[in-house]
Amino acid sequence: MTDKLAKIIMQRCDQLAQFSEIEGQLSRGFLTKPMIATHDLVKKWMQEANMITRLDAVGNLIACKTSHNKNAKTLLIGSHLDTVRNAGKYDGIIGVLIAIAAVEILKDKELPFHIDVVAFSEEEGVRYKTPMFGSKAVIGKFDNGYLDLVDNDGISMKQALINYGLDPHKIPQAAYKPKGVLGFLEVHIEQGPRLAAMDKPVAIVSAINGATWATASFVGKAGHAGTSPMDLRQDALLATAEIIIELEKIALSTDGLVGTVGQLEVRPGSSNVIPALTEFSLDIRHSEDKVRQQAVDKLLARADDLAKKRKLEFNYCENTIHKATAMDSNFINILKEIDPLLPIMPSGAGHDAMILAEFTPTAMLFVRSPNGISHNPEEIVWEEDIEAALSVVVRFIEKLANLK
Amino acid sequence: MTDKLAKIIMQRCDQLAQFSEIEGQLSRGFLTKPMIATHDLVKKWMQEANMITRLDAVGNLIACKTSHNKNAKTLLIGSHLDTVRNAGKYDGIIGVLIAIAAVEILKDKELPFHIDVVAFSEEEGVRYKTPMFGSKAVIGKFDNGYLDLVDNDGISMKQALINYGLDPHKIPQAAYKPKGVLGFLEVHIEQGPRLAAMDKPVAIVSAINGATWATASFVGKAGHAGTSPMDLRQDALLATAEIIIELEKIALSTDGLVGTVGQLEVRPGSSNVIPALTEFSLDIRHSEDKVRQQAVDKLLARADDLAKKRKLEFNYCENTIHKATAMDSNFINILKEIDPLLPIMPSGAGHDAMILAEFTPTAMLFVRSPNGISHNPEEIVWEEDIEAALSVVVRFIEKLANLK
Repeated sequence: MTDKLAKIIMQRCDQLAQFSEIEGQLSRGFLTKPMIATHDLVKKWMQEANMITRLDAVGNLIACKTSHNKNAKTLLIGSHLDTVRNAGKYDGIIGVLIAIAAVEILKDKELPFHIDVVAFSEEEGVRYKTPMFGSKAVIGKFDNGYLDLVDNDGISMKQALINYGLDPHKIPQAAYKPKGVLGFLEVHIEQGPRLAAMDKPVAIVSAINGATWATASFVGKAGHAGTSPMDLRQDALLATAEIIIELEKIALSTDGLVGTVGQLEVRPGSSNVIPALTEFSLDIRHSEDKVRQQAVDKLLARADDLAKKRKLEFNYCENTIHKATAMDSNFINILKEIDPLLPIMPSGAGHDAMILAEFTPTAMLFVRSPNGISHNPEEIVWEEDIEAALSVVVRFIEKLANLK
Repeated sequence: MTDKLAKIIMQRCDQLAQFSEIEGQLSRGFLTKPMIATHDLVKKWMQEANMITRLDAVGNLIACKTSHNKNAKTLLIGSHLDTVRNAGKYDGIIGVLIAIAAVEILKDKELPFHIDVVAFSEEEGVRYKTPMFGSKAVIGKFDNGYLDLVDNDGISMKQALINYGLDPHKIPQAAYKPKGVLGFLEVHIEQGPRLAAMDKPVAIVSAINGATWATASFVGKAGHAGTSPMDLRQDALLATAEIIIELEKIALSTDGLVGTVGQLEVRPGSSNVIPALTEFSLDIRHSEDKVRQQAVDKLLARADDLAKKRKLEFNYCENTIHKATAMDSNFINILKEIDPLLPIMPSGAGHDAMILAEFTPTAMLFVRSPNGISHNPEEIVWEEDIEAALSVVVRFIEKLANLK
């Protein structure tokens, strides 16, 4: 049955990809027009799996498979329906569709807990430049200040909710009561190449990586590229080149650490003038905050050495620190029991699971991205991997039911 | 007498610095308004040294100390009167003023050659984005196409010449006959920090460095900074950082070679995206073409290795090749005899001497830049260094006279 449903999920991804703000590509922001058709169709699929559906005040589409035990807790399973601009068809969507399919498989089974399939309204942060307020509403952490955010067309989030037929005053009611929730499970594409490199379909996520996002700068002295001898230069770019390589060295020698310089400006920026100044971004992530901080400290110490060696000034400004979010160890153990061969890896990107983990035991599964590409129309998944993930989700629910 | 004249030269530099297109800074382009007052004043100083002056058709101000021997050859001494934007007071100017002062010292001496002090009208290439057409006219290499070049105000060079009272048709007459010229001597500030580092006032220039100016690029693959493991990345910036450091290594290990990356662009240029592409400038100079070419070849071989190692594409495009220009060895020997302790060094930048060397035996002296700074209001020279350079020029003329 999982094979049949995996095929259906692939077809459903294609169907949903038709609903876009922009013709010829998939771009579907929070509560934009194509979300109406998306909600209608996903709701229909939810109902076909015998679930009762509702739209909460922030636009999360929720479907419930109720237990006979009225006082049972609720297991949340899901992911998001919004997409980035010019997106792939699978990011977020498969997490919703696999959840529906799992309930479909279990629809005649009585469970000792309710299941709510949650299709979050917002995760990507495209329309209001603020991500994950769908899941934030669910855990009662929706900030009312968000309502005043304005999109590119000048429409406030408050107005967008009203236009969609929702009542912003009821957002607090979108929050689950912590005691009533058993946990949260999210399936998501990996968006990276690790599973492909391992030739594995599915992984257990150990943690959402913490991140340090910073801007750094070396300040030296401009000079004539022809007349300044090498040993008397104060070239800001040379130190920057060394620190870029140092960051790679630190990352390669620290298991699971990733470090990236994605932005770099060089001034004055003339081919015949020695660079007087560089400004560059640092993005350093790891599943353990301590390890990440050690890497940052090591890099900064090296930068200070380089500045001294080259008679430069080094400046460093941390813009954002995201702490690492560990997934629930009991849930991880259950998943390991299902298949001891499932790889366990941290998630480099943020997900709804990161928000839910603050609130309830949370687990996450990655599905292989065969080409490692995401946030891009070239994003793909394989049907057999969807089937593998669906099986794990069904087994997870069954195991959780037997445990009770 | 050289001490008195050195003081006067310093004062004259201050006086000429008043003549600027822009108040509060020194900016004096080719045949701009402030050049009129500059020419008037320099002409007066030339005449005070008993010289006969003329303005050639391209605006070079030339003063002649004639020999009794009508058939004598002419020794040219000089430099340029135009400046860069927001210039220092000494670049070019001191070469003209030292030449005048040398003639002043020798004014009662009969020499077996004429001396023409040449104050070139154009060296910096500011107004018409083309440098050194003053000296090009003098050697008969003025390209008539230059006349159609247009400045920022839409004024053609032809019109600018006419507006200045000059006749563009007479430019060919500005060219000296090769057989009539004994040689050329230029004094110029070093514009670099080497003499300051050696604590020496004056140097003999061995050659004007050749230069390779190129644009290069690494092409990799963009990727998510959080989800892409380090060992699976194709980061264009990492290879670029390595090649920047490699260029410094090659330069440091090759006597006299300088190499600079002054421009670098990184795309897509997001802090959380692995760089897919870099584009950067290469500026590589040496006094020997073979050595420069070996350095370029070594760098390119390394870039290919890096591209292979990191699974990138490497592209390289040479924009300009300037061959090295050796100064005249006889003249260098005469200068060495005057003071065997004078350091000998190549010039990293281009000068009028580079153009003249194609045409006639040419020598060049550098005067220390105490802070190594040029093309900048902070440019300085020391009076005692001017005096030292003036002494060498006078001795050079005397030695040349005795040799005949």
